[in-house]
Amino acid sequence: MPKIAYIDDIDKWKSEFSFYTPIKVRFSETDMFGHVNNVSPFIYFEEARIEFLKAAGLFDSSNIGDGMPIVADLQCDYHKQMFFNDNLKLYVKVNYVGNTSLDVHYMALNDREELCLTGRGRMVYINPQTGKPVSIGESMKEILAAL
Amino acid sequence: MPKIAYIDDIDKWKSEFSFYTPIKVRFSETDMFGHVNNVSPFIYFEEARIEFLKAAGLFDSSNIGDGMPIVADLQCDYHKQMFFNDNLKLYVKVNYVGNTSLDVHYMALNDREELCLTGRGRMVYINPQTGKPVSIGESMKEILAAL
Amino acid sequence: MPKIAYIDDIDKWKSEFSFYTPIKVRFSETDMFGHVNNVSPFIYFEEARIEFLKAAGLFDSSNIGDGMPIVADLQCDYHKQMFFNDNLKLYVKVNYVGNTSLDVHYMALNDREELCLTGRGRMVYINPQTGKPVSIGESMKEILAAL
Amino acid sequence: MPKIAYIDDIDKWKSEFSFYTPIKVRFSETDMFGHVNNVSPFIYFEEARIEFLKAAGLFDSSNIGDGMPIVADLQCDYHKQMFFNDNLKLYVKVNYVGNTSLDVHYMALNDREELCLTGRGRMVYINPQTGKPVSIGESMKEILAAL
Repeated sequence: MPKIAYIDDIDKWKSEFSFYTPIKVRFSETDMFGHVNNVSPFIYFEEARIEFLKAAGLFDSSNIGDGMPIVADLQCDYHKQMFFNDNLKLYVKVNYVGNTSLDVHYMALNDREELCLTGRGRMVYINPQTGKPVSIGESMKEILAAL
Repeated sequence: MPKIAYIDDIDKWKSEFSFYTPIKVRFSETDMFGHVNNVSPFIYFEEARIEFLKAAGLFDSSNIGDGMPIVADLQCDYHKQMFFNDNLKLYVKVNYVGNTSLDVHYMALNDREELCLTGRGRMVYINPQTGKPVSIGESMKEILAAL
Repeated sequence: MPKIAYIDDIDKWKSEFSFYTPIKVRFSETDMFGHVNNVSPFIYFEEARIEFLKAAGLFDSSNIGDGMPIVADLQCDYHKQMFFNDNLKLYVKVNYVGNTSLDVHYMALNDREELCLTGRGRMVYINPQTGKPVSIGESMKEILAAL
Repeated sequence: MPKIAYIDDIDKWKSEFSFYTPIKVRFSETDMFGHVNNVSPFIYFEEARIEFLKAAGLFDSSNIGDGMPIVADLQCDYHKQMFFNDNLKLYVKVNYVGNTSLDVHYMALNDREELCLTGRGRMVYINPQTGKPVSIGESMKEILAAL
C-alpha cells in the first residue's frame, strides 16, 4: 500500500474502527469501465457519516447546541476496485476532536474483508446565521470521547 | 418505432418542438453496460424542463401566482442507446395546458439527429401551504400559448 | 388518486405484489426542495428490478438463453413525497409476459405503508449481436408464471 | 483560507491554471440543504479531468501507449457553497509528472470568480492485463510539459 498522509500504522488504524454501516452498491453507481464510479465512494462516506452521527445522537440539533456541521474537506484513496453487487462495510471513526471541528476517518471493506477505500474529512461546526465556526461544546465532546 | 400512447403522428409530433437545451452526458451518468444509465434521461428531462420554464419566465415565482409546480408523473421511451461524449439536444414542449396542470413532452436527439428518447410528464400547480391544486392563471396560460 | 392507465383496480393491483426489496433513501438522492429528487425513483426501480430478477434466477445469463434484457420504457407516478431517512419497500411484479418482452410493475410504500410511487416499464429481450428481439423461452416463462 | 497541504502560495497556485471546462450545476446535484451536494464536486472533477485529457490528446488510447489511467486518490476542499444555476469554471492542471503517475490539481470558480473548490488527485497508468503501473512514456511527458 502506498504511504498515506493520514495513516501512520495501517494495522493500528484499522483496529480503531468499530462503527460501520452496510452499503449496497447501486447499479447506477457503476460506470462504463465496469466498476463502481470514482464519485460513488463519496456517496458512501456521506451515508456512513450521517449514520454515525445518528448513532451518536449528534444528528439531531438538540444535542449539538448552536452549531451545524458542514464538510470542510474530503479525501479518498482507492485501494481496490468495487463492483455492482458488492456489499460493503463502511467504517467511520472520529480521529480527532478540536474546538470547532472534527476529523472523521473512513474505511470500506468488501465481502471478502479486503480494503477497498480509506478516507478522511474535516467537519466544522458553524453558526448558520453568521457562518462563523462555533465551539463544539463539552457534552458533545464527551459523547464523542465515549464512542 | 413501437406505438407510443402519447404520440399520434411521430413526424407531426417532432415538428412541434422548437425549444431545446444542450445536454452533455457526464461520465458518471454511464453504467457498467457501457452506455448511459437508464436513470439518466430523467436527469436530462429535469434540466430541460427547468430551462424551458426559465426561458418562458415561469420559473420565478413572481410570474406563477400562488402556485408552485410539482411533478405528478414522468415517462420515457428509450429508442436508441446514448453514450459518453454524446451531445444531446433535449427538446421540450407543452402539449396541453389544463386548469391546474401542464402536460410536458420531451425528445432527445443525438449528434447525428437520431431520436434517442421520447417522453412526457404532467406538472401540477399546487398551493405549497395546503398541497391542493391551484388554477394556473390567465397570464401564465397566455405565456404558454405564445411559446 | 388520479386515474392511472396501467392500474384498473388499485386494491387488486396492490394485492398482487409479494416481492419487495428494501430501499434506504441516500442523502445525495434528495434535492434543494427538501425531499427525494424526482429522478431518484428510477434508481429505486432499477435496484428492485435487478433484485427481482436475481431472486427469480433470471439475472444470470445461463437461465435466459440467448437474450439480454433491455429497458424499452419506464414510467412513474408520484403519489406522496419521500424524504431522507425514509425506508421504502419497493415492490415488483411481472404484469404480463409476451413473446419477447415483459411488462414489469412497481410500487413503493414508506414506513407508514403509505403509497408513494407506482410505476411500470417494459423489458425486451434482445440478441446482443443483432439488437433484434428474441423469444423469452418456455423455461423462463415458467419461472415467471410461478412467481 | 485554511492552510491546505497541496497549496503553498494560493495566488501563484491559481495563476498556474489555464485550461478549464464550464460546468452547469444540475438540479439533481443539489441536496436538501439547498446547495450543491458534497458529492457533486467529484462529478465535476471527473468531467474536467476527462476534458483536459481529451484536449491534450491523451484520452485516446493511441497516444498513451500500453497504460490506462486509473484514479489512485482524490481530495476536495470546500471553500464556498455552490447553488443550482451556478455556472462554474472547473480548472485543471498537471502539478507533477512522475514515472508512472500524474498529480492533477483542480479549482472551481463561480460566476463571480469566487473560489468555491480546490482539489487534487493522483492518476496512475497501469497495464490493464497485469494491473501493474507502467511508465508514462516520453511522448506523453512531452505533451504534458507543453500544456
